[in-house]
Amino acid sequence: MPDQALVATVAGAVDVMDGLMQPRPLTIAHILERAERLYAHKHVTTAGTERHTYVDVVQHARRLATVLDSLDVPVGARVATFASNNRRHLELYLAVPATKRVLHTINIRLSSEHLEYIVNHAEDDVVFVDRRLLPRIRPILDRMPRVRHWVVLPDGSPTDIRPDPRILDYDELLSGADPFAGSFEDTFVLADENLASGLCYTSGTTGRPKGVLYSHRSTVLHCLGTLAAGLIGLRESDVVMPIVPFFHANAWGLPYGAMMAGASLVLPGHSAEPAHLLQLMQTERVTVAGAVPTVWSSLVPQLREYDLSATRFLLGGGSAVPPTLSETYRAALGVPITHSWGMTEVSPVGAIGGTRTQHEQATPEERVAVRAAQGQPLPLVNVRIVDVDTGRELPRDGHAVGELQVSGPWVASGYFRVGADESYTDDGWLRTGDLATIDADGYLRLVDRIKDLIKSGGEWISSVELETAIASHPDVAEVAVIARPDPRWTERPVAYVVLREGSGGTADELLQHITPMVAKWWLPDDIVFLAALPKTGTGKLSKSSLRESMRMG
Amino acid sequence: MPDQALVATVAGAVDVMDGLMQPRPLTIAHILERAERLYAHKHVTTAGTERHTYVDVVQHARRLATVLDSLDVPVGARVATFASNNRRHLELYLAVPATKRVLHTINIRLSSEHLEYIVNHAEDDVVFVDRRLLPRIRPILDRMPRVRHWVVLPDGSPTDIRPDPRILDYDELLSGADPFAGSFEDTFVLADENLASGLCYTSGTTGRPKGVLYSHRSTVLHCLGTLAAGLIGLRESDVVMPIVPFFHANAWGLPYGAMMAGASLVLPGHSAEPAHLLQLMQTERVTVAGAVPTVWSSLVPQLREYDLSATRFLLGGGSAVPPTLSETYRAALGVPITHSWGMTEVSPVGAIGGTRTQHEQATPEERVAVRAAQGQPLPLVNVRIVDVDTGRELPRDGHAVGELQVSGPWVASGYFRVGADESYTDDGWLRTGDLATIDADGYLRLVDRIKDLIKSGGEWISSVELETAIASHPDVAEVAVIARPDPRWTERPVAYVVLREGSGGTADELLQHITPMVAKWWLPDDIVFLAALPKTGTGKLSKSSLRESMRMG
Repeated sequence: MPDQALVATVAGAVDVMDGLMQPRPLTIAHILERAERLYAHKHVTTAGTERHTYVDVVQHARRLATVLDSLDVPVGARVATFASNNRRHLELYLAVPATKRVLHTINIRLSSEHLEYIVNHAEDDVVFVDRRLLPRIRPILDRMPRVRHWVVLPDGSPTDIRPDPRILDYDELLSGADPFAGSFEDTFVLADENLASGLCYTSGTTGRPKGVLYSHRSTVLHCLGTLAAGLIGLRESDVVMPIVPFFHANAWGLPYGAMMAGASLVLPGHSAEPAHLLQLMQTERVTVAGAVPTVWSSLVPQLREYDLSATRFLLGGGSAVPPTLSETYRAALGVPITHSWGMTEVSPVGAIGGTRTQHEQATPEERVAVRAAQGQPLPLVNVRIVDVDTGRELPRDGHAVGELQVSGPWVASGYFRVGADESYTDDGWLRTGDLATIDADGYLRLVDRIKDLIKSGGEWISSVELETAIASHPDVAEVAVIARPDPRWTERPVAYVVLREGSGGTADELLQHITPMVAKWWLPDDIVFLAALPKTGTGKLSKSSLRESMRMG
Repeated sequence: MPDQALVATVAGAVDVMDGLMQPRPLTIAHILERAERLYAHKHVTTAGTERHTYVDVVQHARRLATVLDSLDVPVGARVATFASNNRRHLELYLAVPATKRVLHTINIRLSSEHLEYIVNHAEDDVVFVDRRLLPRIRPILDRMPRVRHWVVLPDGSPTDIRPDPRILDYDELLSGADPFAGSFEDTFVLADENLASGLCYTSGTTGRPKGVLYSHRSTVLHCLGTLAAGLIGLRESDVVMPIVPFFHANAWGLPYGAMMAGASLVLPGHSAEPAHLLQLMQTERVTVAGAVPTVWSSLVPQLREYDLSATRFLLGGGSAVPPTLSETYRAALGVPITHSWGMTEVSPVGAIGGTRTQHEQATPEERVAVRAAQGQPLPLVNVRIVDVDTGRELPRDGHAVGELQVSGPWVASGYFRVGADESYTDDGWLRTGDLATIDADGYLRLVDRIKDLIKSGGEWISSVELETAIASHPDVAEVAVIARPDPRWTERPVAYVVLREGSGGTADELLQHITPMVAKWWLPDDIVFLAALPKTGTGKLSKSSLRESMRMG
């Protein structure tokens, strides 16, 4: 049987056969060519003003491929983007990995120090920058000497581009290039599916940012996960709007997912103004949109002024979606915000919330509680909870609380130029740093970040549960609970609250409101009112900044 | 960077990095354990009389795993089934591949000669047989000497089991076994995803049956394809009824797809009586069912006597779904029969028909024509048409007709103990033997089997088009057109027609009916009325039998 590979992977097994299936790799090149062949007529709209078909976008990507060759960008080199969600950025999403370079998406809200660190650490060869963001780059250009080319993406802004041999223009490069006429997919062999395709640094609220290096295989499998019906379920009839930035953990897989499914894409461009986003959702009849809770929250005041009747699915992630926020959307649009649990290390989507058939008979209140959970893992993803001290796996009974760990073919095994560090277990699972329960139906419920738990008198207080209780008061716009060192109790909770404009809640009122909801000894020692809470570069609440300012007094 | 594998697969490339993603294999063990963890409460119903939860089914599969060990069935050995769609068969679908044996599903309608040939060719170690099918096996038992054990699956039938040391009882074996308590998934490493998981022989209308050897990887990827939203889109809220037999090309992926999605399963058991199938669909509120056109056709007379309002999606395949049949269902249930193009060699689903957003503005007649096409390839599947003579790829213009060829990670690369034969191109694509067009949207339309084309006066006549025209006459129940050798024209078409009960169409009426639809020289030379058309073991029309009887006079 010379046609069958013989492998012996099982101890004590006889010779075992491989299946006789075609050795076709899973590649982003397939996503590109599938969109070109099946969905040429579908649209990519940027900011409501620019409209291209998929065949246009792919033709640009084919030109970009030869541009990268002519710039002598080596295969495997990192090609970075510093850009908003726009059509040219999508072309980079396609052409860079389809030509076996690595797409490094950089957070445009990073500090100059972090930006410089990340570009140098990634050893980016070329960086593509939105024209309006060039002023962020120019002052530190000389501190990133390995970058050979800075390519400006025209974005309608009049930002001055002073002549500099290092700075090139995207549209000029493309108009001077022939499109690659062959099949990208045919240039890949099976082993290539493991090639690095993308690089994204974690936001690094503690310590140095660390790079997650995705492969073609992981990206395509994650993409199939976003297509699975009944979960996110991207489909041809969708109009998908990633409000979540392209640099925020691959925009949760929405760009590749939409293209593989054949859905049209609506890209908001650089503006995150509520009126702009809502207008786009109305005009383009967006069916699926994804954004962090703070963005969803920002749209609430104007939600009923727009016709959002095309909406099918709203995705929330990055941090927990407050049930009150989700319910506000459900009341206004008939569509709740479905929580998607993920991490940069998980490509990012690991689990999808929402109700299932077993909740059909549940009361409305019970269904709200189900929707507040992080949900069930996607196909191919496994989750477990382990005792933080002993590392022993805990039961899936909905009660035991342990560190959430995750494994699967789109979960990282280490970090770029670092490898597997303390974030990974000996058996190769990712430690999430989240405390969670898992119930008998496989539903995850995050209890808290391990480092955000408050240890008071030898017992634990969940900052998240306190926040949820406080956020249920109608006057509260945002809330964060952190630990204050306490000589007697070790730590005690303190709440930082932003009130809604025009409302006048007091600390006493809030304490009264939550008293029936939590144990008496959980009541915060202090409620501090702020005009705004500190955020990280991806718009997440930064508890480390709050702790810092508390420490500074 | 010792943590990064360096590969050099691209000619002239610098060292290229693999992504840093977990090396998790794609395995059927994951499907089993996912169903156990997330969907323990969902149901498997057999024939309306037996109802089990997924956790029961998986517990049985865990016992079956240790039974296979205690029977000393080697890893890699073929474990065959000769059974209807029932719960025990599903347990074999799970336990056999999850323990790294190969599940060989045998067509229960095979002749004794084919059955014997296939069992011996596959070198089956154990065969599991429905009790009522034992009389089919017993007379030829001695001609399959390599089979060590015949295990009877109780099916409610009183078939006599005479004492024979080679014959064991499934339920007895399981009740005496401890369930395997560990994780099947954890026994797999990355390389194992290519292990053979299943074996299915092609129906072999010409020549010897050939075995298609599936891998865990191909099976899981195909399974994800059946979950993709907007196509088949299996989901947790579905109740899936594979009427298509488990031995017919993996029941089109419905059993594994349903379990991965968390849908409940309804298995019809041994009866294919229309009233039985319709009653099951009504009682169990089936949302998705799959069957060959002849079965769908058999349900038509009683279709309106049952409440089938839960129906969401009806899948037809195996042979072309006549548009009139699909439209009958659309009129009765609001749900057409969606054509799924596939082959045993394609796991089997390669393409899915039905309309897409671009057809929203089409006329009802145009939409009927779209639904008659074989549709667009699933994600990860590529199709092309090539000139039969030159092997040159033909344009995707909806006009050029060529041999359909297919590639993808769930497409075979050869046959068991045969390897890649003339069915595969030099570049590793599968030749389907079908003539097709592909349009600019990637829609396949099958024109005919290459061998069924009729060469008349130097021009080609499509037997399929003629059959479609004749089938549109209300009196026609079934039709087949084949070529009769002709001294002047080389070949001429002859139609074999089965009339609906009680109708009295004549040859002249049928010829008059189709005259406006086809070229004059396409009109059949003869229309022969038969009481029934010959079928293959999988219920497909057997043109080779018709040709045989024509030849015999």
